[in-house]
Amino acid sequence: MDSTIAMFYLVQNDLRQVENLLCEEPHLLGPRSFTSLQEVRSDAPPQILKSVVIQLVGSGGKRIRPALALLAGHIYRADQERIVALASAIELLHTATLVHDDLIDGALLRRGNPTLNATWTPAATVLTGDYLFARAADLAAQTDNLRVMRLFAQTLMVICSGEIKQMLDKRANLSRQQYYDRIYAKTAALFAVATEAAGVLGGAPEWAATALRDYGERLGMAFQIVDDVLDFVGNEDRLGKPVGSDLRAGLVTAPTLWFLERDGDRRLITDILDDGHKDDASIREAVRAIRESGAVEAALEEARQFVTRSQAALELLPPSEYRDALWELSAFVVERNR
Amino acid sequence: MDSTIAMFYLVQNDLRQVENLLCEEPHLLGPRSFTSLQEVRSDAPPQILKSVVIQLVGSGGKRIRPALALLAGHIYRADQERIVALASAIELLHTATLVHDDLIDGALLRRGNPTLNATWTPAATVLTGDYLFARAADLAAQTDNLRVMRLFAQTLMVICSGEIKQMLDKRANLSRQQYYDRIYAKTAALFAVATEAAGVLGGAPEWAATALRDYGERLGMAFQIVDDVLDFVGNEDRLGKPVGSDLRAGLVTAPTLWFLERDGDRRLITDILDDGHKDDASIREAVRAIRESGAVEAALEEARQFVTRSQAALELLPPSEYRDALWELSAFVVERNR
Repeated sequence: MDSTIAMFYLVQNDLRQVENLLCEEPHLLGPRSFTSLQEVRSDAPPQILKSVVIQLVGSGGKRIRPALALLAGHIYRADQERIVALASAIELLHTATLVHDDLIDGALLRRGNPTLNATWTPAATVLTGDYLFARAADLAAQTDNLRVMRLFAQTLMVICSGEIKQMLDKRANLSRQQYYDRIYAKTAALFAVATEAAGVLGGAPEWAATALRDYGERLGMAFQIVDDVLDFVGNEDRLGKPVGSDLRAGLVTAPTLWFLERDGDRRLITDILDDGHKDDASIREAVRAIRESGAVEAALEEARQFVTRSQAALELLPPSEYRDALWELSAFVVERNR
Repeated sequence: MDSTIAMFYLVQNDLRQVENLLCEEPHLLGPRSFTSLQEVRSDAPPQILKSVVIQLVGSGGKRIRPALALLAGHIYRADQERIVALASAIELLHTATLVHDDLIDGALLRRGNPTLNATWTPAATVLTGDYLFARAADLAAQTDNLRVMRLFAQTLMVICSGEIKQMLDKRANLSRQQYYDRIYAKTAALFAVATEAAGVLGGAPEWAATALRDYGERLGMAFQIVDDVLDFVGNEDRLGKPVGSDLRAGLVTAPTLWFLERDGDRRLITDILDDGHKDDASIREAVRAIRESGAVEAALEEARQFVTRSQAALELLPPSEYRDALWELSAFVVERNR
């Protein structure tokens, strides 16, 4: 995503503050009671964690989640320090889930960089992910807002629960409702908390916090559908992975779902998902059939509807340049190509 | 630990409430914005997670951490619901760390029951641990107290950071300070937050919250030293693992540290830790030499000093049967045999 477009321009400085906060060394609560040492001590995480965080933070994510929190926070003039803490917590939570996901999927590259598990042991990768979860919770706590912290904990539960469901449920007979539930847990829940919590921090009235949540949630649904579409039609260099990766990983996503609903050749899919024929030829044939069926266009149309509905939620809010930027951001989501 | 002793009797009903809360199905924040479904929905985690939580919770831990929180909370008459939420959060956080630890160590049994990773894939085990962290954070949020939530997040960072340090640092030249730092992060930090946060929930004055923290921290130090001693002298059936497991895993703990400080035969230890001679004969010989050196007694004496100091912190607090129970609990820690 091109960070020079207007919506990012508005929060460019804020995003720098987010990066600085993420790269800061946290102050850990140290032990007080050592036999030979009575004074309060503080402790720091091992140096290597600092460099891992800097590497992960610097590896060029889209920063769409923190940008959402920052823009939404500005609509209601939330306190700068708290909104930056929230945006940082959201981005780091996202990063933490990626660290464990890459380990679980055995992914060796992300955004063109080696994943943590590509160079570290599984043990170190698990613990580093755990540490990042903890630090994300600590950043969320820095918003000094009980409701935001509860939302944050809830969202983490939704994400983990969704991942476990997805793992248990890698079959061709996925319903559309199950697919929606999955992408809600995977993506939309975190988008929703980014915008809702930002409004809460700004003291937005209840109806506005709900509108911000709806905006984030619907945008997140659109974002994930587009992501799922790109797995079928994207540029492999830009994706950083071969086309059809989701099918190969046993996942039914929007295009496959529409293909099956439109009476596409079921065998092409069940061969891969239920019978485990994951050779290149089978994947290629299924991808080709799905592309030719019009499923990709149908999925994109669905994403556009979610975008339209996210914009409808925005219209409830008082006009401002930040609201305009959120509008622009949602339009951009369906047009992006990686 | 025998749950019929007096200190547990005082919180028997509370502990049942903790178990009930842990086994409750959490209400997850559901999606609002499905195309064909406008109403708010709530979601539940997959059934299998429920049975895992019940299994983990029911597998007979000592419940010492929640008991600490409950007893400390009663001294200052903390609200029952909040104190139960805190105690549950503490116990579940502990459980979550064990799930990932067992995976990392490849442990197949814990408390005589198969570990999660013994029957599940690593992927499922990682995600289940993550879910338990999330649920623990959500339970901490149910205390409705900002300071408690911040303490909780901080403690999780300390624990994870400590585990990573421990992994990076498996060598014979561990200093006593490093050992203290490690057992603080591993055990004492969570004991400390259990008692401090309980006081905070009860509106204890600042000096009393500090005394409660000191009590928990010092008791946690003693508890872990005793744990480390039991790895050298415990009954293998009760331990559920062979004597000398820590050495085999490359860990220097209190008895080994004292052995090295007292000019014990360094080679016996470096052979195992630095040169990787982890055969049964080497471990047996090192364990025998350490036992015969008096290191075990010295370590236990150190633990007793921590207990005495934890009791000194208690004496600052107003007298009550709950304070007496905490006193008794700390005396018990050094005398336990598993």
